[in-house]
Amino acid sequence: MSWLDSMKQKLVECIPNFSEGRRPEVIEAIVSVIRSEPGILVLNYSSDPDHNRSVVTFVGASDAVEEAAFAAIRTASTLIDMEKHQGTHPRLGATDVVPFVPLAGTTMDECVALAQQLGKRVGEELGIPVYLYEAAATRPERKHLEQVRRGQYETLKPTIADDPERAPDYGPLKVGSAGATIIGARNPLVAFNVYLTTDDIKIAQKIARVIRASSGGFPHVKALGMVVKGRAQVSMNFTNTSETSLASVIEAIRREAGQVGVAIHHSELIGLISNSVLVDVASSFLQLEAFSSEQILEYKLSQVLDENNCFLE
Amino acid sequence: MSWLDSMKQKLVECIPNFSEGRRPEVIEAIVSVIRSEPGILVLNYSSDPDHNRSVVTFVGASDAVEEAAFAAIRTASTLIDMEKHQGTHPRLGATDVVPFVPLAGTTMDECVALAQQLGKRVGEELGIPVYLYEAAATRPERKHLEQVRRGQYETLKPTIADDPERAPDYGPLKVGSAGATIIGARNPLVAFNVYLTTDDIKIAQKIARVIRASSGGFPHVKALGMVVKGRAQVSMNFTNTSETSLASVIEAIRREAGQVGVAIHHSELIGLISNSVLVDVASSFLQLEAFSSEQILEYKLSQVLDENNCFLE
Repeated sequence: MSWLDSMKQKLVECIPNFSEGRRPEVIEAIVSVIRSEPGILVLNYSSDPDHNRSVVTFVGASDAVEEAAFAAIRTASTLIDMEKHQGTHPRLGATDVVPFVPLAGTTMDECVALAQQLGKRVGEELGIPVYLYEAAATRPERKHLEQVRRGQYETLKPTIADDPERAPDYGPLKVGSAGATIIGARNPLVAFNVYLTTDDIKIAQKIARVIRASSGGFPHVKALGMVVKGRAQVSMNFTNTSETSLASVIEAIRREAGQVGVAIHHSELIGLISNSVLVDVASSFLQLEAFSSEQILEYKLSQVLDENNCFLE
Repeated sequence: MSWLDSMKQKLVECIPNFSEGRRPEVIEAIVSVIRSEPGILVLNYSSDPDHNRSVVTFVGASDAVEEAAFAAIRTASTLIDMEKHQGTHPRLGATDVVPFVPLAGTTMDECVALAQQLGKRVGEELGIPVYLYEAAATRPERKHLEQVRRGQYETLKPTIADDPERAPDYGPLKVGSAGATIIGARNPLVAFNVYLTTDDIKIAQKIARVIRASSGGFPHVKALGMVVKGRAQVSMNFTNTSETSLASVIEAIRREAGQVGVAIHHSELIGLISNSVLVDVASSFLQLEAFSSEQILEYKLSQVLDENNCFLE
């Protein structure tokens, strides 16, 4: 039910995370290396100085995306020194995580193959240890990013040579100043935070426990309670919005908060979100029956324009 | 915040309503006349046998839309005889209503001019009386479609010659077998029905009175209570979804229904809806702050593709 299905091209989305969120010249250098790759379009990038981390979103055909990601990892390895890096967000390397997401006409298997090819090149040509994760993981315990990243750069460095559990999928048993890079393939992820009308972190933590998969809540939901900008915040990742809708989770948060006399103050989406996720939320709230994306004017129009392969004038 | 704004072409939407919903060959003949106009794309058409009425949605550049609408009105006038037409929906003519809606790059004023041009041709060349309505209305009392259509075909026929209030904007003071046609320009309209968990029409009628503009409810909302398929239904038109959101109205219906122990069973959208209306509903339900359409992957992608005027492969 996506717009993208009507596009006559194969697209992969790549959302690399770099361990630099404070020096604009470094971020610009990385983004411009990505942008200069033929056939690549940069959709979005943003930096967080507290996390000292930047996220870039770009799309293109599979080959172009591999080239752009490789060039970005090489550039980051020369400009970011993990010995000097500090920030609140957990990380293993200068280029910390490189997920590939299948978009129009691309399968998850193709993204896994892409992760493997890129991983091999990064390991062999750049001498950076590479761990494959999520759909590309070679061991069950590497499926989850947080497990691969446990202990961070500082713990990985002294243990990689001797601990077989730390052996990378590609590259040397040695961590240099660029650290290690985690590469994988995954479904689109929605990063969504809810701020409460309280500064009590315990309430956010309690709600996070109720809703997250790891403590028996909604499948495909990760959640943490924290305090951000003076408000209790439930910070969430949705890793499969087809199976767990944002609508059900926000209703649960509203109910749980209401039971202790608290309400939702507002919420925020981090980065990009697929239109269909928002349409699903609307459809659920409106209790629409027999609704089809064929009823969305812009969708229908792009489809018809595409079928006719034309501009109207 | 629409997809359409990123399209590099001027588009007008036209949604003519024809007084035929039972004879497929007549409907097909009308649709195929529209479809055969160069530069016209038909997005949707549907027929209701009870109403004995069909609605077609098509788009194109202004000139092409005028030609297609004229050809459709001419065809309908030869195939539909208002002397024989029966159905539950009020109507004046074979082609009953022809609204033009400004889409990408088009203004309401351009749609008003289009309604005037088409009205003149239909009056002079086809000899059908034409009334202009909504943004194209020439008298305040003709702004609202229901007022123009009051008494229907059967009342108009004997009174048009003598009653100055019935004088058409274009065409003869005489109603033939094609009846009269109402042509105008308006904002996009959302037709949205809510079914309740009761068959009590009084509850639907009471809720309709609470929410509709004409009895002091939400601005830009028309609502009627009826019973459809054995359920009480609140049937609504939203004529300005920027100023009155579907989200607020459905919340009001849920609250009103709850007070008499009734709930919303489900809802339905009739015809097409703009994506931004659904995004607004989602954003409202999620209490999103500082949300921008720039965060919608498909929107951002179509924008960037358009800026680069390219396919990626």
